[in-house]
Amino acid sequence: MVTTLRALTHDRDLTSLRAWLEEHGTLDIADALARLDPADRAVPFRLLTKDRALVVFEALDPLHQQQLLEALRTERVRELFGGLEVTDQARLLDEVPAAVAIRMQAGLPPEQRAAAAALLGYPSESAGRIMTPDFTNVRASMTAADALAKLRRAGPRPTRAQTLVLPVTDDQRRLTGVVDLSDVVTATPTTRMHELVRPETRSVRVDEDQERAARLIQDTGLIALPVVDREDRLVGMITVDDAMAVVEAEDTEDFSRAGGTEPLDQPYLSANVFQLAGKRAPWLLMLAVAFTLTVNVMHFFEGALEAVVALAFFIPLLIGTGGNSGAQAATLVVRAMAVGEVRFADLSRVIWRETRVGLLLGTGLAVVAFPAVAWFFTVPMAVVISLTLVCVCTWASFAGGMLPPIAKRVGIDPAVVSTPLIATLVDATGLVIYFLIAHAVLTGELSGV
Amino acid sequence: MVTTLRALTHDRDLTSLRAWLEEHGTLDIADALARLDPADRAVPFRLLTKDRALVVFEALDPLHQQQLLEALRTERVRELFGGLEVTDQARLLDEVPAAVAIRMQAGLPPEQRAAAAALLGYPSESAGRIMTPDFTNVRASMTAADALAKLRRAGPRPTRAQTLVLPVTDDQRRLTGVVDLSDVVTATPTTRMHELVRPETRSVRVDEDQERAARLIQDTGLIALPVVDREDRLVGMITVDDAMAVVEAEDTEDFSRAGGTEPLDQPYLSANVFQLAGKRAPWLLMLAVAFTLTVNVMHFFEGALEAVVALAFFIPLLIGTGGNSGAQAATLVVRAMAVGEVRFADLSRVIWRETRVGLLLGTGLAVVAFPAVAWFFTVPMAVVISLTLVCVCTWASFAGGMLPPIAKRVGIDPAVVSTPLIATLVDATGLVIYFLIAHAVLTGELSGV
Repeated sequence: MVTTLRALTHDRDLTSLRAWLEEHGTLDIADALARLDPADRAVPFRLLTKDRALVVFEALDPLHQQQLLEALRTERVRELFGGLEVTDQARLLDEVPAAVAIRMQAGLPPEQRAAAAALLGYPSESAGRIMTPDFTNVRASMTAADALAKLRRAGPRPTRAQTLVLPVTDDQRRLTGVVDLSDVVTATPTTRMHELVRPETRSVRVDEDQERAARLIQDTGLIALPVVDREDRLVGMITVDDAMAVVEAEDTEDFSRAGGTEPLDQPYLSANVFQLAGKRAPWLLMLAVAFTLTVNVMHFFEGALEAVVALAFFIPLLIGTGGNSGAQAATLVVRAMAVGEVRFADLSRVIWRETRVGLLLGTGLAVVAFPAVAWFFTVPMAVVISLTLVCVCTWASFAGGMLPPIAKRVGIDPAVVSTPLIATLVDATGLVIYFLIAHAVLTGELSGV
Repeated sequence: MVTTLRALTHDRDLTSLRAWLEEHGTLDIADALARLDPADRAVPFRLLTKDRALVVFEALDPLHQQQLLEALRTERVRELFGGLEVTDQARLLDEVPAAVAIRMQAGLPPEQRAAAAALLGYPSESAGRIMTPDFTNVRASMTAADALAKLRRAGPRPTRAQTLVLPVTDDQRRLTGVVDLSDVVTATPTTRMHELVRPETRSVRVDEDQERAARLIQDTGLIALPVVDREDRLVGMITVDDAMAVVEAEDTEDFSRAGGTEPLDQPYLSANVFQLAGKRAPWLLMLAVAFTLTVNVMHFFEGALEAVVALAFFIPLLIGTGGNSGAQAATLVVRAMAVGEVRFADLSRVIWRETRVGLLLGTGLAVVAFPAVAWFFTVPMAVVISLTLVCVCTWASFAGGMLPPIAKRVGIDPAVVSTPLIATLVDATGLVIYFLIAHAVLTGELSGV
């Protein structure tokens, strides 16, 4: 039996290993694991379902538990599982029991912790990747004096924010509330934790989006937010300083993409010229290719341009103003989505307001533009320019408001619906609107076209 | 004497009041103040220099001190001083002693606290406006047990973050360090505060920019940052939750302006259509007016356009690409400035890198564009387009990198050097570059122009 497990583990035959594990009892598995080389034990262990993994883990003796945790942390095991297809990973790797997850990550320096979080199966950008497993939990029945004594025994923590909020858990490690250290300190020593529990307990699931967790901390002014697994068992805490770093990184990403560039992954002045160009070249090229649409539109309306060359004069102004109007709409909607004010469900409301705002702004500009164009050019030209401003602003504002929620719905960062992207899209369609209106109004001048 | 002070106070003759105060000793002033109506005492008191104000304040009996603090908080006094010119305010109102400032703000709800901060003379957007004066300070010689006892006596605080960091002060209320509550809790009860003081003490001045304070908290992962007055006396603490709110508001402002709109001061879905349009109309109109430059440029080169109508086809592509290149540069530089990576002193470095990045990107695009334009149009046209791409990208990147630091230097928010603004500026100059290159290359076709 042991030979088989050893052979299967050695061959990295995960499917057969899984079958073998299903056929055997947890005590047999613990026994077989103990007989494997310490470095090899991580592979079969990671294939166990969560419930069985806990039983097996607890059946191992403390030395083997420790060795297993160390083996689970190694880069080699991470690579092995990292090399699997994502769907296979999800199929083969179950969630690790909270007790194992916490002990696996505790005491690791931040860079190794990230690797461990990946092995634990927490998706990238998830709450699990930024939480810290070093915390001191208390029971509801403990007194303030008990809690302070427990903190003193645990000693100073590497990150201070960790001890400022104490999670309250039950016998099953399930989160039942949080207590502020300041309340514990100012309470009389005999006060029980359940009297100090904060009225509202907020927490996030370990696989939830880390930006959501960070914005929750930001919006509610929390110092630390508990992170729980599928069964509400406490696995870590996200502290406010880590949340601020996430918010800054997300805002930098949004800000960069809204300006038509990927974010630099380093300070601006440390990046060299090629790194700077590399973050920008794909965007610039993509937008330039999209701009070839405008060349085609202009080519199509060549006759009109030849007949009334003054039509060309207003092209930058009209498409630029349309682009700006669309950029304004996209900017406000993208930011509102980033801070959680607008969701996909609000799409129809957003479109309805943006269409009216665009109409209002376009009409305002048209009122200003009409006399100026009529004075310096002709009245028909003024009609064309004014009508185009109204249509282009309305259309651009509509598109700028509509696209970010749709982008998010189909899994694209809404911030890529950036000012440059909207401007480019609106440019081509704006030109079509412009030439169609010109055709309709200037029928005399363009009759031969 | 008292009659005079009463008459001057009643007339709100601040200049004469000031003269009267300079002529009298602090005990006389305290005596005269005590005889005024409680509501009137605030006016002469606020005109005292800081040093004298402290002596006068301490000479008052506790009841009068309390009445004075209440009078100082009233809306009427704030309006009286708020109605003065800013320069008069600075001339007439000296800083209030730390002891008075803290007691004046302590225990106020946040909205009244903002009013009190304004009366205290802290500039808008300054650290003084967001700090909380409710904190518990300790002495370096106190033991951990003493500190915990002091916290217990002070009782629970409205904001929890306040008690998580304890400022250490000397006899003069001067800040000498900070101690983490978690270290106090885990230390043995006889440990003295000076043993627990954190290695580095960071603080900000009460009149410093609140964004600077918030970014400092963000960058260093602090839970609370002490705020001091001109003489290093502790006047308040800025907590991490308030810092996060400032960072979010500043990022929203930058993000909005970079997209060519003022930030909404309310959630997107609560703003009505006219409020939405109102934040955008000034930007849209200003940019449209700037765009009239492009109409003039095109008008000037009308002859070239008539001779080679194909020149018009590429206008949106060329000025759009230039605008995008400039927007990328501005975006990265504005963000780097917001998070404190780039300052005005780095201007020449920024310009040098952005010029090279622009040259690199423009050359890359030119290499892609040349064969396509040569194939669909003519080789001379391909030369014009390629050369223009190189020049426009380089120029735009140069301008986009240069303008944000210069804007900040002259007191303008760098984020107004937004994507739309850069795009508009680059459009007009890009057109000039384009037509000049076309003139030079297409001499045959344009010989009659």
